[in-house]
Amino acid sequence: MGSSRNLTLYVDLLSQPCRAVTIFCSGMIDDDDDDDEDARVNEIEAVVQIVSFVKKETREPLFLAINPLGQVPAIDDGGFTLSESHTIMRYLAATRKVADHWYPEDLEKRACVDRMLDWHFGNLHRDVAQFLVHRELAPLLGRTKNPTLAAEAEDSLKQSLKTMETVWLKDSPFLAGGSQPSIADISSACELQQLKLLDKEEPGALLAPYEKVKAWMVAVEEFTAPYFMDAHCVLEKVAQIFEDRRKCEAEAEVETAPKL
Amino acid sequence: MGSSRNLTLYVDLLSQPCRAVTIFCSGMIDDDDDDDEDARVNEIEAVVQIVSFVKKETREPLFLAINPLGQVPAIDDGGFTLSESHTIMRYLAATRKVADHWYPEDLEKRACVDRMLDWHFGNLHRDVAQFLVHRELAPLLGRTKNPTLAAEAEDSLKQSLKTMETVWLKDSPFLAGGSQPSIADISSACELQQLKLLDKEEPGALLAPYEKVKAWMVAVEEFTAPYFMDAHCVLEKVAQIFEDRRKCEAEAEVETAPKL
Repeated sequence: MGSSRNLTLYVDLLSQPCRAVTIFCSGMIDDDDDDDEDARVNEIEAVVQIVSFVKKETREPLFLAINPLGQVPAIDDGGFTLSESHTIMRYLAATRKVADHWYPEDLEKRACVDRMLDWHFGNLHRDVAQFLVHRELAPLLGRTKNPTLAAEAEDSLKQSLKTMETVWLKDSPFLAGGSQPSIADISSACELQQLKLLDKEEPGALLAPYEKVKAWMVAVEEFTAPYFMDAHCVLEKVAQIFEDRRKCEAEAEVETAPKL
Repeated sequence: MGSSRNLTLYVDLLSQPCRAVTIFCSGMIDDDDDDDEDARVNEIEAVVQIVSFVKKETREPLFLAINPLGQVPAIDDGGFTLSESHTIMRYLAATRKVADHWYPEDLEKRACVDRMLDWHFGNLHRDVAQFLVHRELAPLLGRTKNPTLAAEAEDSLKQSLKTMETVWLKDSPFLAGGSQPSIADISSACELQQLKLLDKEEPGALLAPYEKVKAWMVAVEEFTAPYFMDAHCVLEKVAQIFEDRRKCEAEAEVETAPKL
């Protein structure tokens, strides 16, 4: 289905759900490929508005009129406003010209995508957030790191990765089955990509034992290239800052260590 | 849309998402009302199979063939298996004869329901679980109560209740707008009903300041009567056990207190 409405997308690429929506709509970043029949990304016409939560722009009255909760991502589709990344992707898949595999019309296939979106919310999303906060980010958020909570989240995350390896990706290259990705793949891949904040070289040493998960991450990135990495450029910079800080702290420790 | 497939619903009424799905399908509990045009509940033909997670029936091979994750609720719809309560309700709304207001065909109205389902997952569901575990249930789960986590969850829950009061229910009796409930109302009302475990008389003293939330809880219960309370009978019994235990502990404290 097409739409002649004017769409505005409000995002901050520091946020995982914003990156997912941005990648899904990637045509709006580069719509020079209109005539390219091989283009595998969607080409959703939209104005992209960056709303920084660090600069508290999400709390400004103009944005609160779009989303009273003061959270990104949000959209304004010709006056109809909406929030929640999974909801936005479902809605855009239904109202724009988007390849069927992202959110299939077939009710069973669609249910398999819905299941993965809900599973993501109740597992990966919860665990990655808790793990990152209590392993690394807490001081930046004015909170205290809690090693017990970091360990609990790590255990739960390992269980989820095992589920991906042995159930969801057991016989399929993508989470909801089929040979092409769905919006659930974008959402979950963006979630795990955040583990780079802990390990710059790959998205988390945590992923090392999970061969199918790693292959799936590469497949999602390749399918949505170059938009997946484009949307993660801000995360890459933050990951580099963390890496540099860890090196500085390690060097400082060596310098202050008592000499034998 | 109708369906001639044989549907089996696997639930344990100790679980909030199971209660939500059971209420949504309530026609299967009592389908004597087939000719009652006033019936406001759905009448989804299904075999209900109780799978107790306390008795570890969710870990048995026969059930793992239905849901390899070993979690309820799950369905088997003529060989097509599915899990995740929101996904199951979306799927049944699309494949069974169900009144439109539960999950509307109109794309904007549907998006408003999707937004509330996702908001529920990322807010109420997370906070009520953490609050109940660390205020009351932890010892039963072999864990240690953490008062800091209970307080954090309570703060977050109060924020969510304020959002319900001042945003979602500000101008509407139900969460996604409109004059009739959606599947998001069932899901969120079942979530808050669990607060009875802490306060038998009403679903949590925590709700006291939120007039619109309380009126909405009554409206959801009345709209789905008698199925809402029927599905909560097990929770009622557990709440009574907790209440009795609290009284015993309070009496024991009085008896062992030093006499002045």
